[in-house]
Amino acid sequence: MRNNPIGIFDSGIGGLTVAKEIIKQLPNESLIYIGDTARVPYGTRSKEIVTKFALELVDFLLRRKVKCLVVACNTISAYALSEIKKVSPVPVVDVLQPVVDRAIKTTKNKKIGVIGTQGTIQNRAYDLAIKKLDPKIKIVSCACPLFVPMAEEGLNHHQATKLIAREYLSDVIGGGIDTLILGCTHYPLLDEAIREAVGKGVILIDSAGPTVTELKKVLSEKNLLSNNPYLKYEFFVTDVPERVYQVASRFFGSDLKDKIRKVTL
Amino acid sequence: MRNNPIGIFDSGIGGLTVAKEIIKQLPNESLIYIGDTARVPYGTRSKEIVTKFALELVDFLLRRKVKCLVVACNTISAYALSEIKKVSPVPVVDVLQPVVDRAIKTTKNKKIGVIGTQGTIQNRAYDLAIKKLDPKIKIVSCACPLFVPMAEEGLNHHQATKLIAREYLSDVIGGGIDTLILGCTHYPLLDEAIREAVGKGVILIDSAGPTVTELKKVLSEKNLLSNNPYLKYEFFVTDVPERVYQVASRFFGSDLKDKIRKVTL
Repeated sequence: MRNNPIGIFDSGIGGLTVAKEIIKQLPNESLIYIGDTARVPYGTRSKEIVTKFALELVDFLLRRKVKCLVVACNTISAYALSEIKKVSPVPVVDVLQPVVDRAIKTTKNKKIGVIGTQGTIQNRAYDLAIKKLDPKIKIVSCACPLFVPMAEEGLNHHQATKLIAREYLSDVIGGGIDTLILGCTHYPLLDEAIREAVGKGVILIDSAGPTVTELKKVLSEKNLLSNNPYLKYEFFVTDVPERVYQVASRFFGSDLKDKIRKVTL
Repeated sequence: MRNNPIGIFDSGIGGLTVAKEIIKQLPNESLIYIGDTARVPYGTRSKEIVTKFALELVDFLLRRKVKCLVVACNTISAYALSEIKKVSPVPVVDVLQPVVDRAIKTTKNKKIGVIGTQGTIQNRAYDLAIKKLDPKIKIVSCACPLFVPMAEEGLNHHQATKLIAREYLSDVIGGGIDTLILGCTHYPLLDEAIREAVGKGVILIDSAGPTVTELKKVLSEKNLLSNNPYLKYEFFVTDVPERVYQVASRFFGSDLKDKIRKVTL
């Protein structure tokens, strides 16, 4: 079992920022990634539909005998985590709890900002998880619906992105936060525009780092760290128009063109 | 049959700009609209997937005994029209051919610009349809991937939209066009930003006007214009997060909150 791959899934290709971090922090692990590019984005969909789609992705990975599941999508983590844990016989690591833990450890003035898709922000999953651990923390949150398409277009340095970032983040900055949760796996691709909007005094917490640190801890505790020198990385999507290759390679940081396979759920 | 409703469908809520025009130009007609909000957008998906989804929407409308089908989506018109015509026993009007006919009639200098989603532009459906009627026309086309989310966010007057519009449209303007096809039903919501970017000398052709003029002609020829004074407008979507109500009402021009029903395909 310990040499089976890690299963990682997302609504689309944003979770590749987490996959990249797994390969960096856990270089002895094989992984299977699946992104539901035929039905992305999930951020504007209802809880019911997101849960239905998420369980189909989980089923795909479990049939491939993964040793654990990484929910590399904030919307799925916010809406469907308990349902996924119910059906999964293997450990499940999500992107929400590890990020919340890290943010609480990081903030000094007890003021945390949260940005994400409309689904993540409306669901208030980050707010509730933070308040559960420390009810005194002040939270300022804000949906940033244009950030996903802007990240996919590679507009980190574009003046339009800076304008939109400044507008979206004005309330968050006005709230005097010292820590900002990037509550969407796409947002690290806009880190410069976001950093410029919030200023140097604010620490950005993205999904990938804390999630993979937690994954490492879970695998170690359950004696599931691989000792197999033969690595295998597999990437599946549910639809592959030409654009997926370009955007996926941008998110993963290297060319995935011949490595992505299409699958029907 | 003639008093049966018009069936109109789209990948999401953009087609409501066409529904609105039907109600304006054909005030005696009932209609059923369906938008596939659970799987929108189609513009970045493959032809195979778009065709599969489109035929499910067609089936939904045919089962409700519509007297004709209006394909109020450029991606579906470009990818799946022949398949839809194969299965449909009622007349089919798409958004592509009427717009092409109108653009060819409009241009004086024989230079037409086409903007749309990545799917529509890559597919080259407008180029081919124009060239078929007049091979001498010069076409300059350009994908505008951020326009759909910007239209949905209601950013017609935003500086960021103007910057992006100017950038997207620079090649089109440089091509010396006198006519610009807005090859996506969302784009009329950004008409001011687009108009400002292209200047007053360029005539904008959107999907709704020419499509509904063609629909009127087809219904009249086939003796299918309604004589029933009892109108019924029905709106279906495949997923209804809170945001759909807001955006749909923006596109339709009046509040649809209590009028939209969710359906599973």
